[in-house]
Amino acid sequence: MPEFLDDEYFMKQALAEAAQALRKDEIPVGAVIVCQKQIIARAHNLTETLNDVTAHAEMQAITSATTTLGGKYLTDCTIYVTLEPCPMCAGALAWAQIARIVYAASDPKRGYNAIAKNIPHPKTQVSCGILAKEAALMMKIFFENKRIRAQSINRLNKPS
Amino acid sequence: MPEFLDDEYFMKQALAEAAQALRKDEIPVGAVIVCQKQIIARAHNLTETLNDVTAHAEMQAITSATTTLGGKYLTDCTIYVTLEPCPMCAGALAWAQIARIVYAASDPKRGYNAIAKNIPHPKTQVSCGILAKEAALMMKIFFENKRIRAQSINRLNKPS
Repeated sequence: MPEFLDDEYFMKQALAEAAQALRKDEIPVGAVIVCQKQIIARAHNLTETLNDVTAHAEMQAITSATTTLGGKYLTDCTIYVTLEPCPMCAGALAWAQIARIVYAASDPKRGYNAIAKNIPHPKTQVSCGILAKEAALMMKIFFENKRIRAQSINRLNKPS
Repeated sequence: MPEFLDDEYFMKQALAEAAQALRKDEIPVGAVIVCQKQIIARAHNLTETLNDVTAHAEMQAITSATTTLGGKYLTDCTIYVTLEPCPMCAGALAWAQIARIVYAASDPKRGYNAIAKNIPHPKTQVSCGILAKEAALMMKIFFENKRIRAQSINRLNKPS
């Protein structure tokens, strides 16, 4: 694989999707699905915008990729996602029989590894840690902003 | 709860959805979501029709119910589903914080209990076995028909 189309390159694309989620005040998670070095799907978390807990980046990316490919399996594809998938998304990736999952930051509370390590398909390869600091920093910015905003609202609501 | 609006009544509605899936040559799984004794969402498996592994009955029912309620949590709702949810669907129901999951037939191979019993939200109550025979019969019909069709195709393809 040429240097410019390596795991880091594709994770940067997933981070660009996460940045789009951040701009929309969504938890910043982004994903891209790659088939034969080509990005066939891009998505970011839209749970607040769509008011739908199923609208995680991975779920949308799977639907988009299978639409592009015209088949419901992703056996020749890799998903790059900025955060460790939750059990729902890991379960969906298992149904899609995706060849490889590459995630950046771990999610010790809500990631699938905290529930069951065997949710992905047995043939799926899993790698993690690529650009993890950048992905974690984006999450930190989101939750810090959220906390500061909540404190400001609390202060405004207090009787003077 | 009046007799005609009990668990069996709502599971029959889920079975009616599963029958619709069967007519479309889909694995016959149906679901309804109930809030204050009213059905607010109905769905059946459409993975083949939509060419999308995420199009399970439960996933569509969640999206539909949250659209109806205008909020992304289902804390006052019960889902009735004809087959034990898979990890993906159990994970989605956990995010939705659904109050109760009632499923008919168990799925010892692909149900969430085979992977991890703690995928549903800790506050979610789970019941199973209501109209399980009816739900299992529908699955049996589907897979028998599939097998017979495959045998017929094999016979046609054999040189005479």
